[in-house]
Amino acid sequence: MKIKKIILSFVATFIIVNIYAQTAEPGEYNYQKRSLFEILPVTSSDIIFIGNSITDGCEWSELFNNINVKNRGISADRTYWILDRLDYIIKGKPRKLFVQSGTNDLGAGYSPQSVVDNIAKLIDRFQAESPETELYIQSIFPVNDDFKKYVNHISKGKEIIETNALLKQLCIRKGITFIDIYSKLVDENGKLNEKYTNDGLHLMGAGYLVWKKAVEKYLN
Amino acid sequence: MKIKKIILSFVATFIIVNIYAQTAEPGEYNYQKRSLFEILPVTSSDIIFIGNSITDGCEWSELFNNINVKNRGISADRTYWILDRLDYIIKGKPRKLFVQSGTNDLGAGYSPQSVVDNIAKLIDRFQAESPETELYIQSIFPVNDDFKKYVNHISKGKEIIETNALLKQLCIRKGITFIDIYSKLVDENGKLNEKYTNDGLHLMGAGYLVWKKAVEKYLN
Repeated sequence: MKIKKIILSFVATFIIVNIYAQTAEPGEYNYQKRSLFEILPVTSSDIIFIGNSITDGCEWSELFNNINVKNRGISADRTYWILDRLDYIIKGKPRKLFVQSGTNDLGAGYSPQSVVDNIAKLIDRFQAESPETELYIQSIFPVNDDFKKYVNHISKGKEIIETNALLKQLCIRKGITFIDIYSKLVDENGKLNEKYTNDGLHLMGAGYLVWKKAVEKYLN
Repeated sequence: MKIKKIILSFVATFIIVNIYAQTAEPGEYNYQKRSLFEILPVTSSDIIFIGNSITDGCEWSELFNNINVKNRGISADRTYWILDRLDYIIKGKPRKLFVQSGTNDLGAGYSPQSVVDNIAKLIDRFQAESPETELYIQSIFPVNDDFKKYVNHISKGKEIIETNALLKQLCIRKGITFIDIYSKLVDENGKLNEKYTNDGLHLMGAGYLVWKKAVEKYLN
């Protein structure tokens, strides 16, 4: 019975992953969060964390004990979908914006360069429309293929390193801050340290404390 | 190609739903959030919202512009799993606790009475170990079976009504407040109003505003 469940689970995961990889549109959850973010104000005092499930999963205002630190992460989001939901953040002209995105693009088969091109567009929009906003591009995080979920994501270790190198160069060209969190989360084998994850992709509480420590000096 | 995708999607959904219904343990995401909640403090000034994905999906401190309003929702959570993660909330002796849970239990085949029995245990623990905490049991929300996702959940309209009636009686017996949000979200056909959802189960931003309006008088 247990083996049957495991086989069914693999089949289902395979089907789901392949459907999502081919889907050009975000799912219902993305639109639920967008519609919430459209009614929650952003002001020039705010510090925004934008990204995918790893950003979504945190309670940012609690982590920094600061009501102006706001979560604009959406689980499963990709860089080119994020570009479609910047209006309601840009018009608030936030004080700071922390970006962490790209792993889902790579998991769906997009190239490191395409991730960096999208992050470049995000930077261009903010520098043009809200130049007061301080931009921080955070590295993508390592993955760990010892875990057997999210197979399309956790197999992209090499592409993640390549993306981070390109993101760093981009930040130098644009004159903004690149924050390396990758090296704080990786183990000696180049994998997301199992102290910080239970699925090879997402963070446990201890991982969020590492993230906090890596960025807190940029918050004030 | 599109029909093939739809059929694959239905097959995958069927398999996934049936695996989850038979799974006695919460998934990785549940443990990721628990481990985060274990390191985020709860104090006697705090107002805690606990529940499943519908609670998880909101930004509560932003909605009420109050850093003491904290999100302890976990997507896919069930009442009997919530009973296992109360320690780190109870020891903080929060000022208020708002509970909204039960739909996932019903979706997994559990009875209305089992939901109410678990909520009763939650109330008993708080009344014994943190009697200063004001408890608010919120009704389960209506579902809408015009949408075709979450078929095990959106088919439980009758059971949701039954659960809410039992929860109301429970609150009278325990001397605490029951908050009816169901009637604010339902349409004239007894379904979750399509103004407030895009999948028949979860809320759009407009739905969260209805929820806010229904509970804000209890926050102060």
